[in-house]
Amino acid sequence: MDGRAYLLEQQSRIGAALEAALPPVSEPPEALHRAMRHLFFPAGKCLRPALVIASAEAVGGAASRALPLAVAVELVHTYSLIHDDLPCMDDDATRRGRPAVHVAFGEATAVLAGDALLALAFEVLARAPGDAPLLLVASAELARAAGSRELVGGQVLDLAFAGSDAAAIEDVHARKSAALIAACTAGGALLGGADARRVEALRRFGRKLGIAFQIADDLLDADQADGCTLLAALPPEAARQRAEALLCEAESETLELGEAASPLRLLARYAVRRAE
Amino acid sequence: MDGRAYLLEQQSRIGAALEAALPPVSEPPEALHRAMRHLFFPAGKCLRPALVIASAEAVGGAASRALPLAVAVELVHTYSLIHDDLPCMDDDATRRGRPAVHVAFGEATAVLAGDALLALAFEVLARAPGDAPLLLVASAELARAAGSRELVGGQVLDLAFAGSDAAAIEDVHARKSAALIAACTAGGALLGGADARRVEALRRFGRKLGIAFQIADDLLDADQADGCTLLAALPPEAARQRAEALLCEAESETLELGEAASPLRLLARYAVRRAE
Repeated sequence: MDGRAYLLEQQSRIGAALEAALPPVSEPPEALHRAMRHLFFPAGKCLRPALVIASAEAVGGAASRALPLAVAVELVHTYSLIHDDLPCMDDDATRRGRPAVHVAFGEATAVLAGDALLALAFEVLARAPGDAPLLLVASAELARAAGSRELVGGQVLDLAFAGSDAAAIEDVHARKSAALIAACTAGGALLGGADARRVEALRRFGRKLGIAFQIADDLLDADQADGCTLLAALPPEAARQRAEALLCEAESETLELGEAASPLRLLARYAVRRAE
Repeated sequence: MDGRAYLLEQQSRIGAALEAALPPVSEPPEALHRAMRHLFFPAGKCLRPALVIASAEAVGGAASRALPLAVAVELVHTYSLIHDDLPCMDDDATRRGRPAVHVAFGEATAVLAGDALLALAFEVLARAPGDAPLLLVASAELARAAGSRELVGGQVLDLAFAGSDAAAIEDVHARKSAALIAACTAGGALLGGADARRVEALRRFGRKLGIAFQIADDLLDADQADGCTLLAALPPEAARQRAEALLCEAESETLELGEAASPLRLLARYAVRRAE
């Protein structure tokens, strides 16, 4: 099995869970519910939810215990894409080769669809079966990763970013990309039953992977390399080496987990080395 | 004690808890953290958090157990005001006699400050001390009240509203106003230790109070009576009678709680009969 095959296997499981979690289009307000589903069907890669599940499995936990967090994380990620694309933010008319939500449904509905997806993420987690104290910790971690100190704060810094200082660029990426990925891997481990030491090891794994993943994304988008990208500070080959070094550091956090962490490592390699 | 005095007493307690929950302005991104605080200091009336606390006390619970939900509800309410005021929504330049957040900080920061307040609401609840299963239920209820079926759905219906059908108008108000108020009263009762029957009685109380409160708001704003207001369907005196009838129905839900529910009833009367 390679990382891509593992990802494909998880996509159908996660897609079914998303379908069940999202309100049906037949329920009013129909336009809002259609807008909330616009970026899910067809879905994105579902890398983040697959990382949640692979992290639970890496510590010997059942995938089913981590599935609600996997769904919640993809809802949060998608809300952030919808709001990032708004005219007052990055002003992107397309997303995944289709019209952005604000283009297809109007700006007000796009803001509101994002808001509703964010609220739904926490409803999914709060209604999940399982250990209530663990679910509360996962909810707190997801909220923090989505909040002003991480995801939202990273977007604010990204919008205002100017300069070419590599450390400042990585700080934006740590907030905007890596914090949510660390919440995936730490939260997956937590719901999989890991002790605190392993949760922290998988959190470090997620943070490093998140930065490496963002560098890989920027390398794929190198022709539109403006804004906050490591390519403003480093030539492409050096940026690629930095991503590989981070991937290697991330993998070293999983060594004591042995074979159970193999899908997680394969996913990480696929995420950083993919060439779409 | 009257409802206004009870409300003033709660405001300082809630204000202190909000101050502790919101990230300090000294922490980056400073502009985002300033925007998140813009509508809190000076604060609004804090009616919703006071209803949470009065509901916990009405069932014999300690106010302290309900305080995290009180804070979370005010964070959700304030996020919704910031997004409702955006140019693509109601396009209001002022709020509580001061510049709206998008006027003071720009549109992108206003969207993001609202997003961050919504996430913070769930972080506050998830980190609260107390009974984890009850906190999860309160979190699920708040998320549902904030989501596409209630608060956000109500705003979508409000933006598109045309007509003068009283039942359709009350449906919008049930979603946009009453659902969050019902989450306050039901959630306060839940965290106060009430059994399911009393939680449901206080949920009905909140739903009826929420509609009555919205009618009272529309009567105070009667000079700008366009959009979705019961004044499009009824003359002012009939609307006032409808609010009074709902208030009376709401109060009847609290009768078996006796004197412990007295502050809750006083708050409800103050909310519906205030003349600012």
